[in-house]
Order: sequence, then structure tokens, then C-alpha cells
Amino acid sequence: MRRDVIREIEGGICAVPAVRAAGVHCGIKPEKPDLAVVVSDRRATVAGVFTTNRMTAAHILLDQKHLKRGWLNALVANSGNANACTGRRGLKDAEAMATLVAELVGCHPQEVYVASTGVIGKNLPMDEVAEGIRASVERLSPQGGHEAALAIMTTDTFPKEAAVAFAWQGKKVHVGGMAKGAGMISPNMATMLAFLATDFVAPGPILQRVLRRSVARSFNRITVDGDMSTNDTVLLFANGASGVKLDERALPLFQEALDRVTLALAKMIVRDGEGATKLVEIRVKGAWSLKDAERVARAVANSPLVKTAFFGQDCNWGRIMAALGASGAPFRADRVDISFDGTKVVRGGRGLGEERELAAQELMKRREFTLTIDLHQGKGEAVIWTTDLTHEYITINSSYRT
Amino acid sequence: MRRDVIREIEGGICAVPAVRAAGVHCGIKPEKPDLAVVVSDRRATVAGVFTTNRMTAAHILLDQKHLKRGWLNALVANSGNANACTGRRGLKDAEAMATLVAELVGCHPQEVYVASTGVIGKNLPMDEVAEGIRASVERLSPQGGHEAALAIMTTDTFPKEAAVAFAWQGKKVHVGGMAKGAGMISPNMATMLAFLATDFVAPGPILQRVLRRSVARSFNRITVDGDMSTNDTVLLFANGASGVKLDERALPLFQEALDRVTLALAKMIVRDGEGATKLVEIRVKGAWSLKDAERVARAVANSPLVKTAFFGQDCNWGRIMAALGASGAPFRADRVDISFDGTKVVRGGRGLGEERELAAQELMKRREFTLTIDLHQGKGEAVIWTTDLTHEYITINSSYRT
Repeated sequence: MRRDVIREIEGGICAVPAVRAAGVHCGIKPEKPDLAVVVSDRRATVAGVFTTNRMTAAHILLDQKHLKRGWLNALVANSGNANACTGRRGLKDAEAMATLVAELVGCHPQEVYVASTGVIGKNLPMDEVAEGIRASVERLSPQGGHEAALAIMTTDTFPKEAAVAFAWQGKKVHVGGMAKGAGMISPNMATMLAFLATDFVAPGPILQRVLRRSVARSFNRITVDGDMSTNDTVLLFANGASGVKLDERALPLFQEALDRVTLALAKMIVRDGEGATKLVEIRVKGAWSLKDAERVARAVANSPLVKTAFFGQDCNWGRIMAALGASGAPFRADRVDISFDGTKVVRGGRGLGEERELAAQELMKRREFTLTIDLHQGKGEAVIWTTDLTHEYITINSSYRT
Repeated sequence: MRRDVIREIEGGICAVPAVRAAGVHCGIKPEKPDLAVVVSDRRATVAGVFTTNRMTAAHILLDQKHLKRGWLNALVANSGNANACTGRRGLKDAEAMATLVAELVGCHPQEVYVASTGVIGKNLPMDEVAEGIRASVERLSPQGGHEAALAIMTTDTFPKEAAVAFAWQGKKVHVGGMAKGAGMISPNMATMLAFLATDFVAPGPILQRVLRRSVARSFNRITVDGDMSTNDTVLLFANGASGVKLDERALPLFQEALDRVTLALAKMIVRDGEGATKLVEIRVKGAWSLKDAERVARAVANSPLVKTAFFGQDCNWGRIMAALGASGAPFRADRVDISFDGTKVVRGGRGLGEERELAAQELMKRREFTLTIDLHQGKGEAVIWTTDLTHEYITINSSYRT
């Protein structure tokens, strides 16, 4: 019932009232847009989730400090340079970005959030960045979400935006966002930025709780190459423009609306995984525990042999069985069922023959399909979205810097 | 000093006296040799180490049972079919292989060891296998080690053999072996078979201890794609043909001799990793503990982004830092040093500039180089050998079965 209430709408972060954005090319990258600014015309509460990589980028330290203050007026993001492994200079550069944006939009520097993505270990070209910030702030518009989404791309092949609207207490409320992904997409996020907004009136702590849950169900359920990035950042702000309060009763609806946006963005990230030609949903059922189900799903989703078999459209269930066995999760081989989009190829750990495999291989030609693994042991279930591993992945990543 | 005593010699498993071998084509694969038999003319004590993958192949269950008896007279191995995920039929087939070999060479079936490698989930063509066993036993010869090494290959591009000899108590003693590897090479072994022999007189339990240690230092220190196989098997037998007893005093020498052979074979496996163009030694120093050092080394060695950078001969130390951070091991970013073959590119977590990177990139053009990561925290050290990740890997694995 509630599903019908939440409608997908056009646009991304600027689908939320009182949000303006802009994106420009300032010279961090040779040609493409590389700097984005997003502004909330009303001071917003804010929540953030960051990478678990111990090698965190400069901007993450800054944003975590700013989160303690708890307000957001603007955010600034650049692509082409991760500002990671840049020591004290990196932190100063991130601060300078926040300070300049604060001056230009008229707020406290601690109400500005910063995000960087790109090459690790190089200092930001601060003259260009400052120029880009000035140009972006001048261009800010309620239609600027799309160009901002373009400006945060690295090896992404398309910008990622999603938004929903729903009615609550007779008023219209919105959730919108943008993201960038591509490579290094792994459990616990990865070279991934996502900026999300809503016009609910929402206290920061509640926002934080809802965001954490939503990230766990979306960005933490995708994997491209199993690598973890130094820069992953998800920010959600609530600017209250709808005048509607996010109370306990509204929480389930808001959670679902946010989940719809984050899951849509997460799936776009996988679909656009470096060199990916397939989006594969790995569903594990019947594990002893939730944790076991996750271990199994991740082991399969990250196995290079399984992922190359996806690319080859080869129903190589032996490799899936081997990945199960390597996951460390307890299970009985003679109970395992494996299906591709509903076509069972393994029952009780044994192959069901070539005819079934050929049928499954037909299904694997689809750009998106589901691999279901039922361990028939317990009630643990998990879903992970992954890609295939392709020639294009090698091409992109063996020549990324040059 | 001892190093001088141990000499590398020609040949593989048949470098050990009283060992004969043969390899033939019997039809499991379309054309190439696919069945090998190795016989010890003297009943030998035996030790074995097997995959930790929970999905073990049929032959492993059989071998583990035979190990309880503790004697070896022969071993039979096939390529092209892993006899894994084949249920009871698979176990029966493995038993039938042992029984036939036992009949033909005149020993107890429990003194015959079986190993299979290849595609998972298909039953062995037992008529062909039986034919191959008969043909192999007829061909057995002290010069047959090489053709046996050829017959256990799957996607390997060259056979892997190594042997050493040394003097002990005025007598000459030998250790020799063969292996197959290629893909699925990961910590805790992977689609890897290794058969090792010595002419020491050695009790089984001591043999087992020495083998475990040697595997930990060699086959468990290599990684190709991070996947774990269902079939990994390492067998070592001691047929006593030298008449020299392996007592406590001889142990260090024997351990070193065995390590020389296993490490030589392990490195050949990495060098021949599917599609690999590089053999990279990852050395981690200064970790808090041995375990942390291993975690860091494996995280770097298995990172697709690091491995594609090796392929691209790109000194992308940012990806190495990101892999360190993702490993979960504690360290301080501002203490990390990174060198390629002695050329330092990162000191205290910061890049040392483009000149150094270009110099490192020259070194990365070598077919083999060392990446050293010093965490400057404690005394934990670890070494892992890995490959680059290449187009050829994708080609091989996306079309392996078809």
C-alpha cells in the first residue's frame, strides 16, 4: 500500500525544494566537468556515513568535524583528485574549499561539507579549485542538479540521479540525490560519493539513524571489484522546506522513500561498474544466519572466476560451488540449490544436466539477471548486487592514471 | 653454509630413486595428455595437505582415508575433470581409479592416492580413465616424470618440476616434485596439485610436520585470483631408497631441501598464473604482528586495482595505500614507506615525486619485481607472491568451459 504512495519523480537532488546546484570544469581534469557545489537555501540538519578504509581522505576528517556542529548550508565536491594521502596540506586544502564556499554563500565554514574523488596522493590544484568554486556558486540554480551530478563523475559513463515524492499530512515531501561510482565499489562502500536531500523537518540524530540503515541496504550491498576506497562519503541533509516534521509515525515512510532513492543510485553504480556488461543480483537463502548468508553472497559476488563466467555467459555452477566452499560459511554441499532467474541448474549439490545449463545460459545473455543460491539450512538471507569482470575493466584500470 | 650443500638437479619427481612415472592422453580432454601415474618401487610413508575449501573434491575424501593407513605405492592423477560436486558417484569413481591402479601395480588399494583437476560438476568418463590408467602403467619409467607433469596440466602453459640433491651421512639424498597451477591460486592453495617425493627413510608423522611447514611457506604464499579451489592436494612420500634415516639432526636440512622444491614450484605456478605477465613479490615489514603483516600482504596481493596497475606498469601507490587501509590491519598512514625493487616512492605516507615514480615504472617493466611496504610499527613480516591481472586472464576464464 505504502509503495503506491511513493512516486518516482524526475530530477535528482534539486527535486527537493530550496536546493540549488551547479557543476563546472575548473581544470583538475583536462576537459570534463570536475567541480560541483550544492546549496540548501535553508540551513539543514545533516547526517553522514563514511568509508571504513583506515586510510581516509582529508575531506572525511573535515566532514566528520563539521558533523559535530550538525548543520549544512552547502557542499562542494571535486572529481579528478581524491585529496587522499596528502597529509596536513590535504586537510588545509579541504578547509580552504569549505571556507571559500562559506564566504560566497554566506554561512559558517563548518556548515560546508567537502568531498573529493579521483587519483590518490596528489595535491589539489587550489587555484583552479577556487576558480571553479566561484564559477559554480555564480551558476547555482534549481535546475543545476544534473550538471553537478556530471561534475562528480570519474570513470562513470553516466550521471546518477534519483528522486521520489510522497504525501504526508496533506503536504508533498521529497527525497532526491545524486551519486558517483564506477570502480572500487565494494562492501562498505567505495570510491563512491552520494549526496541526498529531503525537505522534511528532521532532527540530525534521527536522520543519522535512517541514513545508516539505508546505506546498509543499498550502497553496502553492491560490489564491483571488492576493493575499498579511501573516500566514500554519503551525506543526507534535511532542509525543512516542506514544513512537515519527521516524527515517529512518518519514519517508516521516510525510510522507504530514502531506501528507494539509495537503492536506485546503488544499482546505477553497479550497472556502471568499470567495464561491466551485466548487473547480477546474488540472492542467498537458507543460510544458518544472516551473517553466513552475507559471507556466502559476498564470496560469490567477489570471485573473479564467477565474475568472468558471468562475462562469458557461462553457467559455470562449479565455480559458484567453489566460491561457496571458500566463503568459510558452514553448509552442506548436498543441499545446495542454484538457479538463474528461476531456472534451477543445481539441486542437492548436483547438476541437473546440460539442457538446464543451456537454458540458464540463454537467461545469462540478459543485461540483468538473478543468481539464487539456497543452502536449505536455516533462515539467513542476503542480497548483493555485482557485475561481471571484463576486458574493459582491465583496460580502464591498467591505464587510469596515464 | 647449508645452502651450498643442497644442489638443484635436473628432473622432477623421478629425480628421486625408485620412482617411476608416466603420462598419457586418454580422452578426458579432447587432445592433450590428461592422465598420470606415479609409482614408488618401494612402499613409502606419506603425508598430505588438502584444500580448506569446504566443498572438497571426491579424491580428497579418499586420500584422507588412505592417509590413515599411512602407506603409498602409487598415485594417479587426471586433468580435465575435477570430480568435484559429483556426490556418491564421484567417490566411487575415485575408489575405482585407486583399485585399478592397485591391481595393475600389485598393492593394496588404500596404498594408492588419487587426484583430479579440471571442470567441476561433471562425472569422470570412467572407460577412458581406466584405459588411460592401463596405458600409463605400461609406460611407467624412471624418465616418465616430465610426461606425468604434462598430463596434470589444465590451463598451465608449461609443466612444473623441481628437484634437489644433498649429501647426508656420506650418502646422497633427493627431493623432487611436480605441480600444476594456473588459475584459482589463492591463500590456502587452489586448483593446485603437487606431488613430492624423497628417498629418505622417514616416519609419516614427521613427514606430515615438515610438509605442513613447507606448504605454509610456499603454496600458501601465492595468489593469482584470490579464489580457493575444491581440489588442492599436496602429497609427499618417502620411499627410503637412500637408506638414510630422517632423524632429528637431519630435519633442518630436509626441511630446507623440501622448501627449496616447494618454493620453486610455487613460484612457477604464479609465473604461469592465468594470463599473468608479471611475478610480483609483496614484502610487508614493520607490521604489529605476523598476522597483520599477512593481512596487509594478502590485501595488496589480491586487490584487482593494484593488480591491474601492475599490468599497466603504473606506479599507482595510491591504490596500494587504499588496499592497506582496506586490509583492516592497524597502521599509521604517516609512517608508511613503499618501494619498488629498492626505489622508494612513498616515505611517511607521502609520495616522493614524479621522478621516483618514473624510475619505479621502469623497474615495473621487468617480468619480476618486488614491492616492499614498511609500516614502521612493529616486527611483523610477511611475503606473498602474486601476478598482475590482465586481458588474458579474462579471456581464459570467460571461455574456459566452452
